[in-house]
Amino acid sequence: MQKKFRSPCAIASTLDVLGDKWSLVLVRDMLIKGKKTFKEFSSSPEGIATGILASRLKLLESYGLITKRKLPDNKKENIYLLTEKGIDLAPVIMEITLWGDKYMRAYNEELSSYEALKKDKTVAINTVQKNYRQVVAQIIG
Amino acid sequence: MQKKFRSPCAIASTLDVLGDKWSLVLVRDMLIKGKKTFKEFSSSPEGIATGILASRLKLLESYGLITKRKLPDNKKENIYLLTEKGIDLAPVIMEITLWGDKYMRAYNEELSSYEALKKDKTVAINTVQKNYRQVVAQIIG
Repeated sequence: MQKKFRSPCAIASTLDVLGDKWSLVLVRDMLIKGKKTFKEFSSSPEGIATGILASRLKLLESYGLITKRKLPDNKKENIYLLTEKGIDLAPVIMEITLWGDKYMRAYNEELSSYEALKKDKTVAINTVQKNYRQVVAQIIG
Repeated sequence: MQKKFRSPCAIASTLDVLGDKWSLVLVRDMLIKGKKTFKEFSSSPEGIATGILASRLKLLESYGLITKRKLPDNKKENIYLLTEKGIDLAPVIMEITLWGDKYMRAYNEELSSYEALKKDKTVAINTVQKNYRQVVAQIIG
């Protein structure tokens, strides 16, 4: 799949895919919160509209960041899981979190705290990735 | 300045500000390419429209990521410089670059190479930040 990109820059090209308010929030939902279904993503506090959610899931799937499947015991509901490519976004997610923790608190006084991540970034990234891979292994066997 | 955010999540809150295709490309233009003027940003290969450029510069300024000033010897042209808050986006920028280098090459065959960054991320981040601070010091004295 060859698509149209703005330039040879890796930042611009990545943002051609992930540069919106929702894609990385969905990666967060899967990677950190362990969410897997359309219904679970819809229930996140950010309140994503179902049309946007559907289009973002399709986008992430088209770039191989997530897979969509049905479980043997539930043929009605789709399960969305991050691939290794998606799991590899953990360092991006964590650096955004650290920056937000440091600078967005001045604007959003409700901001959560991120003590474990601030204490050891590498451990936090490895833990989140390892835990997610275990979840995937349990689901797809 | 208290603004409206979607949730207490640092990722979502950061993306409320920077979650678009252009804001981090402009931070890249300043931090890595040393661009400082509206004209220089306009000439980047991504081809940002002037209206979007103006609105993104205003947004970045409103959150204290950049400052706008005029130089004593050129009263006509505005100079945009990253603040420490903006310079602190270097780890986010670099992780996005590394992810893009690894995974976007399959879709964008023109992608640049990032050997220095891949060799030592910490050195690359520190070098870029140090060089930019020197540029700022030379300009604002």
